Amino acid sequence: MKFQVGCQLKYDLATPCTFIFNISAFNNGSQQVFEEHLQIEPAVNSEEYVSSPLKNRLLRLTAPQGKLEVNYQATVALYLEEDNPNTIPEIPPDKLPLRVLNYVYPSRYCESDRLINLANKEFGHLLPDYSRVTAICNWIYDNITYLSGSTDSQTSAYEIVTQRTGVCRDFAHLGIAFCRALNIPARFVSGYAYSLEPPDFHAAFEAYLGSRWYLFDATRLIPRKGFVRIGTGRDAADVSFAMIFGSAQLDSMKVSVDCLSEEIPQTTVGAITSL
Amino acid sequence: MKFQVGCQLKYDLATPCTFIFNISAFNNGSQQVFEEHLQIEPAVNSEEYVSSPLKNRLLRLTAPQGKLEVNYQATVALYLEEDNPNTIPEIPPDKLPLRVLNYVYPSRYCESDRLINLANKEFGHLLPDYSRVTAICNWIYDNITYLSGSTDSQTSAYEIVTQRTGVCRDFAHLGIAFCRALNIPARFVSGYAYSLEPPDFHAAFEAYLGSRWYLFDATRLIPRKGFVRIGTGRDAADVSFAMIFGSAQLDSMKVSVDCLSEEIPQTTVGAITSL
Amino acid sequence: MKFQVGCQLKYDLATPCTFIFNISAFNNGSQQVFEEHLQIEPAVNSEEYVSSPLKNRLLRLTAPQGKLEVNYQATVALYLEEDNPNTIPEIPPDKLPLRVLNYVYPSRYCESDRLINLANKEFGHLLPDYSRVTAICNWIYDNITYLSGSTDSQTSAYEIVTQRTGVCRDFAHLGIAFCRALNIPARFVSGYAYSLEPPDFHAAFEAYLGSRWYLFDATRLIPRKGFVRIGTGRDAADVSFAMIFGSAQLDSMKVSVDCLSEEIPQTTVGAITSL
Amino acid sequence: MKFQVGCQLKYDLATPCTFIFNISAFNNGSQQVFEEHLQIEPAVNSEEYVSSPLKNRLLRLTAPQGKLEVNYQATVALYLEEDNPNTIPEIPPDKLPLRVLNYVYPSRYCESDRLINLANKEFGHLLPDYSRVTAICNWIYDNITYLSGSTDSQTSAYEIVTQRTGVCRDFAHLGIAFCRALNIPARFVSGYAYSLEPPDFHAAFEAYLGSRWYLFDATRLIPRKGFVRIGTGRDAADVSFAMIFGSAQLDSMKVSVDCLSEEIPQTTVGAITSL
Repeated sequence: MKFQVGCQLKYDLATPCTFIFNISAFNNGSQQVFEEHLQIEPAVNSEEYVSSPLKNRLLRLTAPQGKLEVNYQATVALYLEEDNPNTIPEIPPDKLPLRVLNYVYPSRYCESDRLINLANKEFGHLLPDYSRVTAICNWIYDNITYLSGSTDSQTSAYEIVTQRTGVCRDFAHLGIAFCRALNIPARFVSGYAYSLEPPDFHAAFEAYLGSRWYLFDATRLIPRKGFVRIGTGRDAADVSFAMIFGSAQLDSMKVSVDCLSEEIPQTTVGAITSL
Repeated sequence: MKFQVGCQLKYDLATPCTFIFNISAFNNGSQQVFEEHLQIEPAVNSEEYVSSPLKNRLLRLTAPQGKLEVNYQATVALYLEEDNPNTIPEIPPDKLPLRVLNYVYPSRYCESDRLINLANKEFGHLLPDYSRVTAICNWIYDNITYLSGSTDSQTSAYEIVTQRTGVCRDFAHLGIAFCRALNIPARFVSGYAYSLEPPDFHAAFEAYLGSRWYLFDATRLIPRKGFVRIGTGRDAADVSFAMIFGSAQLDSMKVSVDCLSEEIPQTTVGAITSL
Repeated sequence: MKFQVGCQLKYDLATPCTFIFNISAFNNGSQQVFEEHLQIEPAVNSEEYVSSPLKNRLLRLTAPQGKLEVNYQATVALYLEEDNPNTIPEIPPDKLPLRVLNYVYPSRYCESDRLINLANKEFGHLLPDYSRVTAICNWIYDNITYLSGSTDSQTSAYEIVTQRTGVCRDFAHLGIAFCRALNIPARFVSGYAYSLEPPDFHAAFEAYLGSRWYLFDATRLIPRKGFVRIGTGRDAADVSFAMIFGSAQLDSMKVSVDCLSEEIPQTTVGAITSL
Repeated sequence: MKFQVGCQLKYDLATPCTFIFNISAFNNGSQQVFEEHLQIEPAVNSEEYVSSPLKNRLLRLTAPQGKLEVNYQATVALYLEEDNPNTIPEIPPDKLPLRVLNYVYPSRYCESDRLINLANKEFGHLLPDYSRVTAICNWIYDNITYLSGSTDSQTSAYEIVTQRTGVCRDFAHLGIAFCRALNIPARFVSGYAYSLEPPDFHAAFEAYLGSRWYLFDATRLIPRKGFVRIGTGRDAADVSFAMIFGSAQLDSMKVSVDCLSEEIPQTTVGAITSL
């Protein structure tokens, strides 16, 4: 499958601002970026940095007071691994690769340490494999109402449990928090999502099962295999699409994802196969 | 300076448990471990892992139901860099090394995104250099009462702001949260602390200034240059001395730090020179 | 039924302290106090006040530094109204007596405004009558684990939803918060409870249905008709057994409830008939 | 002084709704309502209720789906008591009238139990009289930025302490919480405020000192003696201008206050003399 993804971001800067954008498509292994265009107006220097070990592609620039417009376009091919996920077990703590331990710890928006009782009550009796993470996604889908504008950048999984409304970011945070509360490593993934209405940046999460990371999306808003990864992190704090130092206002944002080739299965399931 | 550090941890396990200990002294550059002894009763296999990129030394073991005793002893030499910290500037966002960006983001126990107004009100007018982080430490020392048992493992910087009591871990979390709210990268450091009464694991924090990390301790409980680092992380979630999978109770804990050689200046200041 | 209830409270006062005790049995209509003894050592003056409109009996005294012991004993008869609760409807907002409106509003420990979505998700589809409040009690009993020491005097219903552990006070707060979130007036009741193990002050809640208040106890810890009321309020903030101004430590507390006459049905149900 | 106060509220009801309005001017002793007009379109029955003991005037009505417009106008005279507030002492707990005790307890939006350390740190050393409540108002004015839209109906004093922004309601809640944390009874007052820009319902608070309640307004937004009381309660939960059962949207709201006679001193001070 091949996608054309892109975004146009327009800001009004009240002061000179430094931006760190996390909008470039991930480029590694199962996802390959073919062509890429970045346009910045006014023309200011920008600096790209690929983070280690997660290989997020950060873009930093400093712009003067006034208007700023950033256009990004890329052609991206996805090579999906085929698995039968239902045979994939959770890994017990004594066998977990120590490099994924970070993802069992609680983080800013995923206070898994406060969700241990709830997670065990709801999911503790289930089989410790891929199907348990699917059960987590189903619980979220059934219990949390997707409602634009119902949360903000400070909302965390702990609050979502009771508030019962949220957006993709909150669905992902809660999925991560439940996984970690059960000692399943889990992490946040931002991306471009095919057929999302209205178009926007999307978020999902990954759980470490068997010997790799598997992607899950509790919102059921996008088709299987329609998710082009941007960044990976502990939670949204690590991969916001724009971190701004200074005073700027987002005037408009357009996100686009087009499918350039190959059939996209339209089955919308709680868990979509990992990149 | 040379220190003999160590700990004895006794647990009662109600079930088989997997432990990940973070008690081994850091060993790199400015801090060198000479001799080290680890004793585990009953004798079970253990696995050491040095994390990347922070080089924390994690120890994993699985023990059967019953008693578990872990004894760790090490001789450690510190080679402190000399600096005149008062000439060290903060680094503006457009110049910050992108590898330290992670430490500007909020984390589980350091919700810097919620402390921005407070941090700017209290410290926004100060010079953007080392002295501002010292001012943060002074504020914490003046406004937060050190009180054993007043917080627990779920307490975060956001709560400490109003609760006004805490222990070393809370003092460090609040220092970190204030720094990040001002765009100063900051991180958590656990360690063995000389002359701490009663002896216990200690926590402090580091801020990135000039071209390296500088250590700060808002508790003023330990002398300059008496801090032997164990681990470094975003906050206490990353470097708890023991992460336990299973049901175990800590029966007793002894921590010891002895100075083997060289004079230790006894000046207790808010900021102690970095390792 | 007739009960002998009482408590012995021993304090150590670091400073002179003023106490407001709420330990005297309620005396009105369906509950009658026959004999009552109050002993205070050292002998200090005390002042009784019956609050309006709830008729809580407050006892205020000021004691010097040192030991303080308060002994209270009373013989209390309960005259329970017989009802078939399953025919009792909720009262819609346009018909609610305006004097009970206070009990629809959120309070310190019952943040019903934050539980509206959850309450509607769990109970919104149920019949608007007595059985819905029973369903709330069943949910609490099924989902919250009674665990001594798992909460403190600052814990609120909002936290209990996720923490999933608590004591009688927390069970009552959550029941109240769910009711109010559904526009059912609900209030907190403290009391002496027969056969509670270990003996302690107890808490339950009342919901306004039909034309009066009905008592509910989601803990299922006490038998039907074994609850001797002390005080009534919006939540525990209004009826703590002792409010202390000054620095005092509770050295020991003994609570006793004996049944003096008549059979006490031992059926323990989620909802017990109101006084 | 005489004021003409009023409001026009326009709603769009998606379902039949029951409203409980708290918009009628308080009428008792120091504040007298002369003429009053209430117009409701469509013409539906309404029911007035004067609460006990606080004498809030509640108005209940049920309207069908569609538009609803409520117009209220009143002429109100204020007879202000003259006092020299600076001689008014706080009342120690052993002398407090027990009927005001409710106002020392924490409430939904005034979690005074969580602000005790902070209140004592900031105000514990001050003289226990009127001037201490003025100091509380000054602290709020100096540390909290008045910012429309920065909070919502769930925001509480605990959050304001760190967030450092809020509106009149939040300023009042924080004032109340600080007072109660110091054992000073305090309560919430809603009203019509002269010369508020833009015109809106206003909120302030009262503290019990000497032998009566004194009004304080930490926003410093209105002149001395320009506050026409609507309702009094523990916090905003008790006196919201409209409590709605059903699904309705506020399309527009106009609030007006005109001075009909007598000079209004324009001095804007932290504390304004009580009604």
